[in-house]
Amino acid sequence: MQLGVIGLGRMGANIVRRLLRNKHECVVFNRTPDKVKQLASEGAIGAYTLDDFVQKLHKPRAIWLMVPAGDPTEQMVKELAEKLDSGDILIDGGNSYYIDDIRRANDLASKGIHYLDVGTSGGVWGLERGYCMMIGGPQVAVQYLDPIFKSLAPGRGEIPRTPGREKVGGTAEEGYLHCGSNGGGHFVKMVHNGIEYGLMAAYAEGLNILHHANVGKQSRATNAETTPLRNPEHYQYDLNLPDIAEVWRRGSVVASWLLDLTAIALLQQPDLADFAGRVSDSGEGRWTVTAAIDEGTPAPVLSAALYQRFSSRGEDDFADKLLSAMRFQFGGHVEQHTETKS
Amino acid sequence: MQLGVIGLGRMGANIVRRLLRNKHECVVFNRTPDKVKQLASEGAIGAYTLDDFVQKLHKPRAIWLMVPAGDPTEQMVKELAEKLDSGDILIDGGNSYYIDDIRRANDLASKGIHYLDVGTSGGVWGLERGYCMMIGGPQVAVQYLDPIFKSLAPGRGEIPRTPGREKVGGTAEEGYLHCGSNGGGHFVKMVHNGIEYGLMAAYAEGLNILHHANVGKQSRATNAETTPLRNPEHYQYDLNLPDIAEVWRRGSVVASWLLDLTAIALLQQPDLADFAGRVSDSGEGRWTVTAAIDEGTPAPVLSAALYQRFSSRGEDDFADKLLSAMRFQFGGHVEQHTETKS
Amino acid sequence: MQLGVIGLGRMGANIVRRLLRNKHECVVFNRTPDKVKQLASEGAIGAYTLDDFVQKLHKPRAIWLMVPAGDPTEQMVKELAEKLDSGDILIDGGNSYYIDDIRRANDLASKGIHYLDVGTSGGVWGLERGYCMMIGGPQVAVQYLDPIFKSLAPGRGEIPRTPGREKVGGTAEEGYLHCGSNGGGHFVKMVHNGIEYGLMAAYAEGLNILHHANVGKQSRATNAETTPLRNPEHYQYDLNLPDIAEVWRRGSVVASWLLDLTAIALLQQPDLADFAGRVSDSGEGRWTVTAAIDEGTPAPVLSAALYQRFSSRGEDDFADKLLSAMRFQFGGHVEQHTETKS
Amino acid sequence: MQLGVIGLGRMGANIVRRLLRNKHECVVFNRTPDKVKQLASEGAIGAYTLDDFVQKLHKPRAIWLMVPAGDPTEQMVKELAEKLDSGDILIDGGNSYYIDDIRRANDLASKGIHYLDVGTSGGVWGLERGYCMMIGGPQVAVQYLDPIFKSLAPGRGEIPRTPGREKVGGTAEEGYLHCGSNGGGHFVKMVHNGIEYGLMAAYAEGLNILHHANVGKQSRATNAETTPLRNPEHYQYDLNLPDIAEVWRRGSVVASWLLDLTAIALLQQPDLADFAGRVSDSGEGRWTVTAAIDEGTPAPVLSAALYQRFSSRGEDDFADKLLSAMRFQFGGHVEQHTETKS
Repeated sequence: MQLGVIGLGRMGANIVRRLLRNKHECVVFNRTPDKVKQLASEGAIGAYTLDDFVQKLHKPRAIWLMVPAGDPTEQMVKELAEKLDSGDILIDGGNSYYIDDIRRANDLASKGIHYLDVGTSGGVWGLERGYCMMIGGPQVAVQYLDPIFKSLAPGRGEIPRTPGREKVGGTAEEGYLHCGSNGGGHFVKMVHNGIEYGLMAAYAEGLNILHHANVGKQSRATNAETTPLRNPEHYQYDLNLPDIAEVWRRGSVVASWLLDLTAIALLQQPDLADFAGRVSDSGEGRWTVTAAIDEGTPAPVLSAALYQRFSSRGEDDFADKLLSAMRFQFGGHVEQHTETKS
Repeated sequence: MQLGVIGLGRMGANIVRRLLRNKHECVVFNRTPDKVKQLASEGAIGAYTLDDFVQKLHKPRAIWLMVPAGDPTEQMVKELAEKLDSGDILIDGGNSYYIDDIRRANDLASKGIHYLDVGTSGGVWGLERGYCMMIGGPQVAVQYLDPIFKSLAPGRGEIPRTPGREKVGGTAEEGYLHCGSNGGGHFVKMVHNGIEYGLMAAYAEGLNILHHANVGKQSRATNAETTPLRNPEHYQYDLNLPDIAEVWRRGSVVASWLLDLTAIALLQQPDLADFAGRVSDSGEGRWTVTAAIDEGTPAPVLSAALYQRFSSRGEDDFADKLLSAMRFQFGGHVEQHTETKS
Repeated sequence: MQLGVIGLGRMGANIVRRLLRNKHECVVFNRTPDKVKQLASEGAIGAYTLDDFVQKLHKPRAIWLMVPAGDPTEQMVKELAEKLDSGDILIDGGNSYYIDDIRRANDLASKGIHYLDVGTSGGVWGLERGYCMMIGGPQVAVQYLDPIFKSLAPGRGEIPRTPGREKVGGTAEEGYLHCGSNGGGHFVKMVHNGIEYGLMAAYAEGLNILHHANVGKQSRATNAETTPLRNPEHYQYDLNLPDIAEVWRRGSVVASWLLDLTAIALLQQPDLADFAGRVSDSGEGRWTVTAAIDEGTPAPVLSAALYQRFSSRGEDDFADKLLSAMRFQFGGHVEQHTETKS
Repeated sequence: MQLGVIGLGRMGANIVRRLLRNKHECVVFNRTPDKVKQLASEGAIGAYTLDDFVQKLHKPRAIWLMVPAGDPTEQMVKELAEKLDSGDILIDGGNSYYIDDIRRANDLASKGIHYLDVGTSGGVWGLERGYCMMIGGPQVAVQYLDPIFKSLAPGRGEIPRTPGREKVGGTAEEGYLHCGSNGGGHFVKMVHNGIEYGLMAAYAEGLNILHHANVGKQSRATNAETTPLRNPEHYQYDLNLPDIAEVWRRGSVVASWLLDLTAIALLQQPDLADFAGRVSDSGEGRWTVTAAIDEGTPAPVLSAALYQRFSSRGEDDFADKLLSAMRFQFGGHVEQHTETKS
């Protein structure tokens, strides 16, 4: 079937490619025309203005937005709302805040336009691996676009079937799911990313403990400010982290796709010297924690993972200075500057 | 080759079975003889006293202990130390604290007995899936037992190869690894389990947030003690958790073996009513956090995961009472007993 | 000077009493008339309808609202907005979300009405001890009401002066402070309460550790599910918690008003049996964490304190069941029901 | 009465001075003689060798050690054990790990020497303010030294009496307490310091949130890596932190001695530029968390406070790099280097 795609960055372009491979027709648009040209050369129908784009789509039009969340998406939704007709379908495949989806869907519904929020996981690997899609919005539009979702999704593949799934049916084991009404797709994707933060932090903390398992070999200055290691003989291991990440990939309880990626990264560069360790967060982790708080459900692990990212960017500096200042006030403690850095 | 196995519980018995399938000879012993009989009927050589067991093994003997960590393992190591000879190999395949390994290895080395600590992951699935093994101890003994490890390990299987692995070699991608000197195997296994706690908690917290995504539908009593939900319209989702766990298994960033198991559990019983939610911890999570503290490496996520288990067993009761008592003292706040339970 | 007070609950009534003691004139109103009668009998001017109340106030009127945050405050602000005149001052002394203050202040400013948000700390002790006030809003209104704030505040009292304060001046050491524009008062009060959560949790956790310091005396079942205590001889202390809270009140680093209250509570009932340990949270802790996330500043301690309250109310139940379900899946672990409860 | 004091650093010297003011006789010894000279000039009896020191004490001798915990204390206890007689009393007033106390007390008891572990809080302020003392060891020795403890302690002073205390008696409200058998004093002191970490972190996090309350004024780069602030108009406050710390000192729920010190520090230098924010930890926080884990009691707040100190010293660097490496692997995300630093 036909799909219009706006936003031909890394993910948008690969979504088009995966659809083309599956014999769908793609009309594509991007603010900068060279990306349109590129995909046109690969079989897509290029459009160089938004009006041209809208015109090239059959009714009911189905348009997939893959532009950055926040202002860019907001603005594009507004522009398209002017140009689309009742019965058309607008899909936000980016990482929008689900609360924005609820509002947008209400606005568009008043014009008869269907809105779908599709949380799309898969990153740079999606072209080959398929995209996991969490969908929110009206059933009729989800149903209509089923061929698109089916083609973008990974399908059952060689992953072992969950016992009992055969009796349940549904699309979940194909890798896409209609989660509920509008916002529901991005809500589930948001929590997916919140979990991702937690998983990543669990690996990072554990591997950091392994990385420091030779701390007993270092001579640490002993003074009233620094407690000595009581049993240095217990921390004498120089561990091979690339090998450890690798061995866990098979048969262990912690095997996962994130571990696969960790094994790749550590094999490429065991000391990770190319990275400064300033970890960005793109919103979903924050929103997940905010949702947990609104709901009154505890999320200590997901929050700790989020805060670690803030700290990695120096956002704890003033708090740390305050701790040193208090220690100076009550105990005359002066900061140590010679402690071993990792 | 020949291996003696002591301890024929769930894991020990399956280890024997996997070795038998791979044409190794297994001499087996267990405190209760019926388990010996069972495995003898499956092809193992049964021994009904420890002396008989030791005698049935060729020199240099290789003995795999699969008994509960702590006192049972300690006692068995002591008994065997009396009966074994220089050059024999004693393997602790249980979940011992690596600090005990260091001590035991030193004691046994003085008698010429080699000791290996083998962290073994795989649980009840190991028979089919293979065991991921993290090994600590002298190179010579690890080398000698390589055929055993190779047979127990999952092997490379169909898991995609980490790019660059072909140039590195080693056993890691077979699913077993000599991590370092004694204690090193259980140290890595300990951190593996610490990470496991973190991963599990990340899924549990995230799915709990999804579970409460309909909190806006509930009428909550509003009083000075309870803040109202500001935007109930944002929490109107009745989500299908079995389907969500399933959809994440393909193409998503959070795919993992633990998620596969979660999908099974949720499909079997979506409300998990068979579980009371009293979560045990068997030591490794505690030891991981203790190691993090000794090393001075932050482990907020792994610790939060551990504490959640303590709390699930009511170990926070007195602390909670104290919070209510303080609130009563400064504000006259009386505890609410009508809040919605999940 | 004259002040109108609406809302004669615990805090509102005591605010009136403290003002009367300081020779101010108070016009009072409450939805239920008996509280008005009571305060009228103590020297206040009672009003039994809102119109009567507004009429009894001289212009420019100054009205202090002390009603529950959320809907009750919102509604009263709206009603008063209809009845007040340009130049009048409306004070919200409750625990409103500062974001509501910003909106309300804008709405009222369009009618020439000044709005002040006054975070008021002191609880049931304020009548004698004075109220600590954090004030947001236009300077002219803060200035005008200075005599009221001065009377309600504790004053410098016998608390030692911060060295250097004599050169700085300002009202902070009197116990009230104009923090900034509208919302600023409640923002500072919100963070005050967030800190309060953290302080309370620190005491609660520490005292809980002391409470369990005799855990080595208990015989714990040892099984594969429960790690034994390695050194029971290190946990043989039956500690007197009321005495320990008391001894810390003098000369220690952890002395504080919350500790004073803790000492009272523990002396009254060392086992705190009157409390169930279901700890409410009234919004400010949640908002503090939300602000931290918006700002990108890490708040692991304040968040952990908040989540502990959620957990104390059973909001972690589903997550705990999920952990048990996963453990059952990968290891066949069955939940233990005989572990010692605190 | 007479007391021998070894270790004339900041705390030891002031302990001697406080005892001299209260008409006790102090025999003093220090590795470097100039400190002995100084205190001799203030009225103490100086000793310049350990033998001389021991000889100058009447039997039963009472000796207070105030030397750094760990090796220095250990060695001094061993040396003194050789020179003391049955019936003598040895007091460790430093910050020893209570597990060392249990061992030392057992060793010394075999020679008839009494050992007391005295957790001593008060820091550089103790000379004027008095020392809060938590005491572990045999009743007979604690009783004997009561005059010393009474003089060192703050006494009831002007701090309001806990209601009901008059019926209970005991020394707790004088500021010293016999907590239990050996190790009990340092156990309680250890948890005291653990709580201190938590309290400090609560203030630091809260004040950091206030410090960033103007984040809405900054223009933040918006890109796919950084979520924009949704409501910059909610974060427009330039708050005066020295004034806020000051105003909380009177009448608020968060008033405490640590807040008094914070107010001093912030008034001296609002931006705390003299501090780098590398926060030391001297052992007690680590031991508190370790005790919590041994006991199986959750301590999320105290742990988070401890980990923040580790992070402040860069011990999370490798973990952070790993997070960036994973993000690069799954999403091609490149680290941002232009984010606003606090």
